[in-house]
Amino acid sequence: MYRVDINCDMGESFGVYEMGADETILSFVTSANIACGFHAGGPAVMRRTVEMALEKGVAIGAHPGLPDLEGFGRRNMDITPQEAYDMVVYQVGALYGFVKAAGGKMQHVKPHGALYNMAAKSPTLSEAIAEAVYKVDPDLILFGLSGSELVKAGERIGLRTANEVFADRTYQLDGSLTSRREPNALITDTEKAVYQVIRMVKEGKVHTVQQQDIDIQADTVCIHGDGAHAYEFAKQLHTLLGDAGVIAKAIGEV
Amino acid sequence: MYRVDINCDMGESFGVYEMGADETILSFVTSANIACGFHAGGPAVMRRTVEMALEKGVAIGAHPGLPDLEGFGRRNMDITPQEAYDMVVYQVGALYGFVKAAGGKMQHVKPHGALYNMAAKSPTLSEAIAEAVYKVDPDLILFGLSGSELVKAGERIGLRTANEVFADRTYQLDGSLTSRREPNALITDTEKAVYQVIRMVKEGKVHTVQQQDIDIQADTVCIHGDGAHAYEFAKQLHTLLGDAGVIAKAIGEV
Amino acid sequence: MYRVDINCDMGESFGVYEMGADETILSFVTSANIACGFHAGGPAVMRRTVEMALEKGVAIGAHPGLPDLEGFGRRNMDITPQEAYDMVVYQVGALYGFVKAAGGKMQHVKPHGALYNMAAKSPTLSEAIAEAVYKVDPDLILFGLSGSELVKAGERIGLRTANEVFADRTYQLDGSLTSRREPNALITDTEKAVYQVIRMVKEGKVHTVQQQDIDIQADTVCIHGDGAHAYEFAKQLHTLLGDAGVIAKAIGEV
Amino acid sequence: MYRVDINCDMGESFGVYEMGADETILSFVTSANIACGFHAGGPAVMRRTVEMALEKGVAIGAHPGLPDLEGFGRRNMDITPQEAYDMVVYQVGALYGFVKAAGGKMQHVKPHGALYNMAAKSPTLSEAIAEAVYKVDPDLILFGLSGSELVKAGERIGLRTANEVFADRTYQLDGSLTSRREPNALITDTEKAVYQVIRMVKEGKVHTVQQQDIDIQADTVCIHGDGAHAYEFAKQLHTLLGDAGVIAKAIGEV
Repeated sequence: MYRVDINCDMGESFGVYEMGADETILSFVTSANIACGFHAGGPAVMRRTVEMALEKGVAIGAHPGLPDLEGFGRRNMDITPQEAYDMVVYQVGALYGFVKAAGGKMQHVKPHGALYNMAAKSPTLSEAIAEAVYKVDPDLILFGLSGSELVKAGERIGLRTANEVFADRTYQLDGSLTSRREPNALITDTEKAVYQVIRMVKEGKVHTVQQQDIDIQADTVCIHGDGAHAYEFAKQLHTLLGDAGVIAKAIGEV
Repeated sequence: MYRVDINCDMGESFGVYEMGADETILSFVTSANIACGFHAGGPAVMRRTVEMALEKGVAIGAHPGLPDLEGFGRRNMDITPQEAYDMVVYQVGALYGFVKAAGGKMQHVKPHGALYNMAAKSPTLSEAIAEAVYKVDPDLILFGLSGSELVKAGERIGLRTANEVFADRTYQLDGSLTSRREPNALITDTEKAVYQVIRMVKEGKVHTVQQQDIDIQADTVCIHGDGAHAYEFAKQLHTLLGDAGVIAKAIGEV
Repeated sequence: MYRVDINCDMGESFGVYEMGADETILSFVTSANIACGFHAGGPAVMRRTVEMALEKGVAIGAHPGLPDLEGFGRRNMDITPQEAYDMVVYQVGALYGFVKAAGGKMQHVKPHGALYNMAAKSPTLSEAIAEAVYKVDPDLILFGLSGSELVKAGERIGLRTANEVFADRTYQLDGSLTSRREPNALITDTEKAVYQVIRMVKEGKVHTVQQQDIDIQADTVCIHGDGAHAYEFAKQLHTLLGDAGVIAKAIGEV
Repeated sequence: MYRVDINCDMGESFGVYEMGADETILSFVTSANIACGFHAGGPAVMRRTVEMALEKGVAIGAHPGLPDLEGFGRRNMDITPQEAYDMVVYQVGALYGFVKAAGGKMQHVKPHGALYNMAAKSPTLSEAIAEAVYKVDPDLILFGLSGSELVKAGERIGLRTANEVFADRTYQLDGSLTSRREPNALITDTEKAVYQVIRMVKEGKVHTVQQQDIDIQADTVCIHGDGAHAYEFAKQLHTLLGDAGVIAKAIGEV
């Protein structure tokens, strides 16, 4: 029997501004990455999202980002490893407060946006992030791009890690994602996207844009919580995975 | 033998901006209230301050404030109890991250500035703050103005509390502090200030501006970390308390 | 022939977060109050909104608010008159930059949310705001609640002012709006709301919840840019005003 | 007779946090670059600094930076040219508000920190900044690193520009500043620093770390407003320039 975790970024509303259909999507994911107030989210949203995830039995993770609310944490910033360490400890701690207050348990940490992307390629940044997670709680699971520096840094320090793959993004020969600036970056056909996931989970392979297969490890698959088709896609992925004999289960569950 | 806790607000630098002489003052206090990034402080400052406090054996507390960096958390804001709850959970959690990462333990929570003052008079705001602290960790000690609504709310919910007194502020008949807008709000004479503390600790009394004594409970005394005389005052308070047979000890120590 | 200005708050999106249907609503208003980045908005949104307003021939105004992005500028803050002055100069100046860059002209200033409400009742706060507007440009028109301290302060300093009325809010005997906490604060029936506006414009009277008429001056009427019925209401108000012989025209147009 | 402008970054305090000795330094500079609230400063500081500069007869410029208060605008951010345009228009406009309110005139714009450094090398970023300045007011003078892309972009669009040199920094053969990470980046000897300025002004040459002279244009020289020796250096530069027959005069003065 195969299994995979399905994760989604959540709690990215801010003040009066709404983003995503968190409550709906929560029915189709096994792990929720909750924004911590730096790139999105904030105290009220974090509390509500933690409570919703607990109610639905979805595993909770912190989703720390760069301090760039206006840019939604998507703009690279030239931060030092020490700054990365500090901002991860702060944000993981803040979410921990809400998880503890709600009587729950935190499962994982997944950096957001530019922090995630920069870490994927930088061993020093990744080490700082992995150390921050480890120091706050060595039982946390670190999510990173499959095969990336972040996953390697997590393993080196002794954290359990989760190799993350994407359903609707195409892959390069070196295992990286095709840049969104390229025309063929996205897989818009739902069935193709789901099939890519199933193959990554069951065969450990993905077909690259260079028309060659490469090895890839798929512990958790990321889906999107906003956009017109988010709900439909989440539902269909859930169903088709089941049909293919792949169980969706939170990564931390035995 | 008498004993009292001496606390000081700390970690109120921000980015390149320095405030207070934290390292020096730490030698003369028993509890450090560390700013959590809303009214002052931030990830880097929090990490450094937590590490310094641990090195010097000073007990660590969170010092959550209103989200008003430019006003240093000193301007009253019309927040709801739910908003107060959320911002306290967030900030206590964030500091908790650094305390845990440094292998320490958090002793207490003391709200900052306008949040502290508004809570002193508002049972509903105080209940929200006390609940936030209790939910994150029921072993935390809640600091509030001696005899205030905040202390009462802490007791009602089952938290250990610390009645806080001020060395250099004068008191009104109802136990409140004289407003800083009044000419006689401050005690500038160091000996007088120290004597006021000693009397509050040993006799449980303070002489008000109305020339009458009132009862007051002094579990912890607040001193200031910045200003020209902060260091001198801290040192002298420490010495004179000792001469008067009052031991300075962190509130959480048995 | 009667005339009235129709104004709407605009440019209240922030970063990736969308709010309001600005482009649509712009077809039915004569003055746009554009958020300036403190309670909402920001550089990119301000530029786009200024350009859209110029294209549609809608008069442009600054909509300065309290520095409270998370609370959307709706939470009262205990600011000094000097702080109010400073934040109004800053925000009006910032919008002025975009208006000048787009080759336009700024018509008016209307404070937002809690700043608007606090000013309505406070002569000192209103004087500070009026002085800020006057000093930046004495030709600007100051918008305030009809008959409020803000309008009076504007007149005292020599600014042209616009008494603002609300279509969908009920009034008290003293000319203030019924608090939103009261059950009868809102007029949900569109025809009733429009009729109230027409009567305020043509007769200078409004029927209060105390069932008595009072005098009221209606130079500009505020409509809302978000909510399900914003567009429908704006359109109908526009049509029915025309039927009643009331021309909708920007306050600054001769 | 030779002349040069002496400029200094100012108004970089924030809220309760003080930075620099603006009032003292103002006696020795001819142009003040005033922070606009993104990397430092804020409404209250801007007003006070504009008023001080006007009193001392020092020319006023806007000093816009990246939206990174905690990093003091010194961390590179991956912003688009459009974002650069928007943030410059916003900040120049905001300062313009205070200048207009105080009855003054704005002379120039000098980007801050990482924005200045990124622009020096990027034609597209520089064009966006130059266009922002030009659109707000084509009479403004654009300050940029001597010979940099920013100066070139300013000239292309039709702005008057000022080539900026540094007294206490060493130069590379290509005209760039030696990186602060190199041991020989700074000139700590005051006389040497002043002599470098005098030679740049009078001969249009600077001696590089590669021991070769290169051509350099020195319209304005930047001095620092904080640090232990800021005041002493400013005073000495002023005196020694005079002895060498170089008049210090604001760039905008005929």
